[in-house]
Amino acid sequence: MPARALTGPVRVIGAGLLGTSVALACRRAGLEVLLVDVASEHVRTATGLGAGRADDGTAAQLVVVAVPPDHLGAAIAGALVDGDAIVTDVGSIKSQPLVEVRDVVPPDALARYVGGHPMAGSERSGPLAASATLFEGRPWAITPHDTADPAAVALVRDLVDVCGAVALEYAPDEHDLAVARVSHLPHLMSSLVAGRLAQAPVEHLALSGQGVRDVTRIAGSDPSLWKQIIAGNATALLGLLDEVAARLADLRGLVEAADSDALAELLAEGVAGTRAIPGKHGGPVRPMTGVYVAVPDRPGELARLFADAGEGGFNIEDMHMDHDPGREVGLLEIVVATEQADALAESLAERGWVVHP
Amino acid sequence: MPARALTGPVRVIGAGLLGTSVALACRRAGLEVLLVDVASEHVRTATGLGAGRADDGTAAQLVVVAVPPDHLGAAIAGALVDGDAIVTDVGSIKSQPLVEVRDVVPPDALARYVGGHPMAGSERSGPLAASATLFEGRPWAITPHDTADPAAVALVRDLVDVCGAVALEYAPDEHDLAVARVSHLPHLMSSLVAGRLAQAPVEHLALSGQGVRDVTRIAGSDPSLWKQIIAGNATALLGLLDEVAARLADLRGLVEAADSDALAELLAEGVAGTRAIPGKHGGPVRPMTGVYVAVPDRPGELARLFADAGEGGFNIEDMHMDHDPGREVGLLEIVVATEQADALAESLAERGWVVHP
Repeated sequence: MPARALTGPVRVIGAGLLGTSVALACRRAGLEVLLVDVASEHVRTATGLGAGRADDGTAAQLVVVAVPPDHLGAAIAGALVDGDAIVTDVGSIKSQPLVEVRDVVPPDALARYVGGHPMAGSERSGPLAASATLFEGRPWAITPHDTADPAAVALVRDLVDVCGAVALEYAPDEHDLAVARVSHLPHLMSSLVAGRLAQAPVEHLALSGQGVRDVTRIAGSDPSLWKQIIAGNATALLGLLDEVAARLADLRGLVEAADSDALAELLAEGVAGTRAIPGKHGGPVRPMTGVYVAVPDRPGELARLFADAGEGGFNIEDMHMDHDPGREVGLLEIVVATEQADALAESLAERGWVVHP
Repeated sequence: MPARALTGPVRVIGAGLLGTSVALACRRAGLEVLLVDVASEHVRTATGLGAGRADDGTAAQLVVVAVPPDHLGAAIAGALVDGDAIVTDVGSIKSQPLVEVRDVVPPDALARYVGGHPMAGSERSGPLAASATLFEGRPWAITPHDTADPAAVALVRDLVDVCGAVALEYAPDEHDLAVARVSHLPHLMSSLVAGRLAQAPVEHLALSGQGVRDVTRIAGSDPSLWKQIIAGNATALLGLLDEVAARLADLRGLVEAADSDALAELLAEGVAGTRAIPGKHGGPVRPMTGVYVAVPDRPGELARLFADAGEGGFNIEDMHMDHDPGREVGLLEIVVATEQADALAESLAERGWVVHP
């Protein structure tokens, strides 16, 4: 591995979950870290966790802006004109902040800015939820604009490396189109489906299975953050929303006509889409099969189950816990390569587990 | 427990996954079972599994119709006029088959029909995937029409009991509205989102995280079955599709106007919806928190992890496996009651696990 150009100090602006996690990863790598936040208690918490020291105006080599989407442009521009450090950020949207920055900083300062977006997070927020390992193995988009200095791009790659993440490079507008499709649109549709549940009779909801739980899971996220992400990526989202609205209108027509063959074609588009998502570890998608096992709802049972599964040398690729209404039993789906599924089911049944196919 | 009125024989029409599973559960309870299928190899497989014997015309006490949605009406009507047995079915939709049956059978025969719908299935199909335990602890909707004989309803409740499921009673159209909302609409929206991935550039899909995987999971199901379910439940679905289309149009306007406050309100509807879904075991929703643990991708690691988690007596409520691109490490989210989360994270970290907050 070549020597890193990133030697610090690193100034982190915004000591929330992401900023403090970046700071902790930098400290782990032995770098000097300076912390700033509009909320002084965040800085106190983060310094208490060993994420660095409160900013004392020391000149930094790299500034990492980790503020909410609405404040990105101003914070990045401020960091660029306040010294000559390289500046990056960890925001979910890239084009709109860049436009704001370009409007207010001179070209030589703009060259020192390279956007970034780690694909990591947590349902929790704030510095107490931070961890040096938050980004381990995650994709981290790097989004240099046309006039970015290659040395600045290299320095941001070093930061990604220090955080243990995997760097992927995109033009800013490409990034925004990508996340509109793989993150923001799914989020909005999940929210629309979940919104239809809020007013439903309780007895209707009693028929909820794992499907609706999966589809609506991300709709539970914080609206005050997501409103900024969605509004900030309006340009990339509008085309996709129009596409979905057109397909939804098609779909309505097919449902009304009860045209099941045309419905099958539309549903087949969805099947093709699920197969296009990269498989585990980014590799090709292998055929997988789920084996369902009833697990009594008490401590120790899962350990016993996985010990039994491990005896046979099965490699568990994924799993999902399902909930049985009215019984103190959970149904665990263990996903393995299809060619291992029958042997796993047999092996667990032999060891006394109630296995559903 | 009062004595069951269900004493058999039980005739099962359609020896696929559901029919053969019902048959196996009946055999487990010592009932005589007769099997029919248009595919004779299905009957051979099911009898080979001990699910009963090939139908020889013996009079049945109860007939269970387990054929694809498009054939439900005809098969139920056929069973009603062919003898005087009570007839039920296991189809996903209830109103349309009832209309078809009502059109062709006399009122005294109609009184012997009581619809049913077990909320269980598998990504696999066919008799080889069947199991006597498929329905254990699952909701099983029973949908008597206005003129159903109470004795027929009681007999179908006995069948649900024999299968180990939990009976929930609905009017047929209520059932169809409920599953339109908690199953069919989520399925269609999942499919629309997944359809947008099929044509996406590979490098855009590289930014796919757990969110889009969750939202699109059910879109991978078999279109040839789902086209029948969707087309057969058109009446209940149209109102919901119109509601979603209207909210989608609202949403588009808010995105175009970048009206983040109104977007937050719309997203808050989704949050409320996710909270309306019944919690584990049908109980009230308790606050849960996920603890993320890095798990090396080799056999035995999960067993070790759950053994370590079990030491502390933690009760795992749910879990999800996440996939790290480019690394042979999986990230497992272990969900526990919020008040246990910090202690679990600490306990696992002490035992050498890399824990993400």
